[in-house]
This record gives sequence, structure tokens and C-alpha cells, in this order.
Amino acid sequence: MDNDDLRRGRPTCHKAYDEATALLVGDALQPLAFQLLACDPKLPASPAIRLRLIDMLAQAIGTFGMAGGQAIDLAAEGMQLDITQVEDMHARKTGAVIRASVLMAAECAPPLQEGLYGALASFATTVGLAFQIQDDLLDVTGDASMLGKATGADSERAKPTHPAVIGIPASQQRVRLLHSQAINALAPFGDRAQSLRSLAHWLLSRQY
Amino acid sequence: MDNDDLRRGRPTCHKAYDEATALLVGDALQPLAFQLLACDPKLPASPAIRLRLIDMLAQAIGTFGMAGGQAIDLAAEGMQLDITQVEDMHARKTGAVIRASVLMAAECAPPLQEGLYGALASFATTVGLAFQIQDDLLDVTGDASMLGKATGADSERAKPTHPAVIGIPASQQRVRLLHSQAINALAPFGDRAQSLRSLAHWLLSRQY
Repeated sequence: MDNDDLRRGRPTCHKAYDEATALLVGDALQPLAFQLLACDPKLPASPAIRLRLIDMLAQAIGTFGMAGGQAIDLAAEGMQLDITQVEDMHARKTGAVIRASVLMAAECAPPLQEGLYGALASFATTVGLAFQIQDDLLDVTGDASMLGKATGADSERAKPTHPAVIGIPASQQRVRLLHSQAINALAPFGDRAQSLRSLAHWLLSRQY
Repeated sequence: MDNDDLRRGRPTCHKAYDEATALLVGDALQPLAFQLLACDPKLPASPAIRLRLIDMLAQAIGTFGMAGGQAIDLAAEGMQLDITQVEDMHARKTGAVIRASVLMAAECAPPLQEGLYGALASFATTVGLAFQIQDDLLDVTGDASMLGKATGADSERAKPTHPAVIGIPASQQRVRLLHSQAINALAPFGDRAQSLRSLAHWLLSRQY
């Protein structure tokens, strides 16, 4: 199998079935997400908040989020990007959806006190970027059998990643810095943010 | 260029750019549609109606609509389907979105009198199917230079279409019957439905 054919040790949809099927599954799952936000009775949200959630998800996955970031990623193969450009790409490609996942949950809760929404946004942004850098580091340093996917896919495609642009030690340092920033951002929440702290710790320490 | 490379005389997105770009454009436009329904201030709809529109669009394009119909279409290449199965496939693949386009507009207008919503749904369903059969007829009988795309694509792929399953004359007759049913469905609307009648006439007579 090619490098991109396994995820967590299982064949990807395009390998288990075929590419057309995998694309259609994506085309079918995307509207399902919007439909659940619009109608799912288990979602504790007013119509106005549901519309806000739909807007947030749409922004996170669209032109200025995941799809746009992926377009930059494809265009950047084999190009020289500086680290700011790499981080901008990551902020869109994976960061926007991670950020939306955190902030959409906050929208469903009672309104946050002044400043706390910003703190949560800061947590989500730094954790999202740390996740992506860790992902790119694992592609270089990880154990394919633990990862459940082949490594080396990025360098094979000459993708501009943190390890490729600033090297492995500086990338590891960047992850640690972002991790500290994420943990610090949660300080105002006290014990209430324990599960988010655990998430950040897992992201930093994960080998898969 | 291949059969699928032109639409209305212009190169398709996947030809003008590449397949990855074309897919990403779709991934970016789909959330834009939901975002507009959720937020566009020009849409004269309450939050509750916006959520209903989002639900309708999601259903029309998802598993039980366009994406599911396209999956059936791909799976059916080279298979023998009877005409009921072909019409079920069309109802999902193109019919659901045409139907949603009509009924979503109705949702934005003042509530329809008893029975009129059903009449509009009947119009949309019959027009949607007539459109698809006409499309498949044009693929067999049409003029490629007028269509702006190559003909013969369906038979090349051994796709089960109306012309392939019941022949050209019976398909033309089916379009005429559906057209009459669509026009009849509009009767209760009187003059208010003139633009919908024009649409149905254009669909029946179109050569491109």
C-alpha cells in the first residue's frame, strides 16, 4: 500500500472501497454535520445559537479554513515557505476546525465571563498548531507500527512542514512552547478546564 | 479532451485547473451555501425558517439525496436496472436538489394554503425527473456543439438511463407526460406560477 493508505492501522476509505466512494462519503457526511447542527434535538441550543454554530463550522471548513488551507498545502508542495507561511497554512488546514470544535462547545454553554472566550480561543489556537507540528514530527521521527500509518509521507512529497523548515529540535521546542501557552491560557478556568488540560498533555506526549 | 471535460462549451474546473483543485472548490462551496442560509442578511427568513432551509438542503444533497444518488449511479455502471430503479436514482441524484430549490423558496414566502405546498412539490418532482431524462436524451440525440459538451458519454460508460432502458421514443413520451403533469400541478396557482411554467417549457424544448 502507498503511504497514504492506512490510518490508525486500518485501510483508508479510498483504499477499502475506491476514490469515488471516499469522495461521496465526504460529500454525504458534510451536510449531515450541518443537518445535526440545524435539527438534532439533543443539541442544547436555541435557533439563534444553532445558526451561529453553522456559521462557525462553515467558516472553519471553507475557503478561509480547511479547504483553503488544503489548497495552500497542495500548492506549496516542493516550494520554499518560511515558518510564518507554514503556520498560516496549518492555522487554516487543521487549526480552524480544532478551534471551532472548542469554541462551538462554548457557544452551547452559558455565556462566558468577559475575557474567558478569548482565553479559550487562545487555548484552541495553540493546541491546534501544536497538534499539527507534533503530527509532522511523528511523520519524521515516529514508529509506523505505533502510528498505524506509514511515515515519511511529507518529505516524499517535499511538503513544507516545521521539521523540514526549522529542523526537528526547533520543532520540538515549538511544540513545548505552544503547549505551555495552551496550559497558561486555561489558568482562569481553574479546575473546570481539567479535561482540556488532559487533552493538551495527550497531544504533546502522543506517539500515534 | 475527454467526454467529461466541457460544460456549456467551457473547460470543467478539473480540466482548467486539476482534479484536486476541483474537489477543494466543491468542499469550499458546500459550506458557503450553508453559511449563506445561516447568516445572509438578504435572505428574508426567521431563524427557525433558516434552520428548516439548512435541513432541506442537507437532506437534498446528502446520503438520501444527491450524494447517495451519485453512489447508486456509479455502482450501476454496466448493470441492468429497471426503469423504476433508474427513476429512483434520478430522484436522488438530481431530483432532490431541484425539488429543494423550489420548496426552499416556498419556505421563505408567506405560508401556502392547504394543498398548495403539495402541488408545488409535485411540480418540482416531475420537472426534476423530466430535466434528467431530457439530459440523457440530449446525450444520445443532441448536437455536441449546441450542448457545449461531448455526447455519448452515458453509453460509453454503459450507464442505465431512460434511453438505454426504454429506448428513445418511450423516453421522449415520458418527458412529455411529466411535462403535462408538471404544468397541471401548477393550475391552482393561476398566473402566479407563470415563471415556473416558462421554466418547465424551457426544460422540455431545450437543445442544450
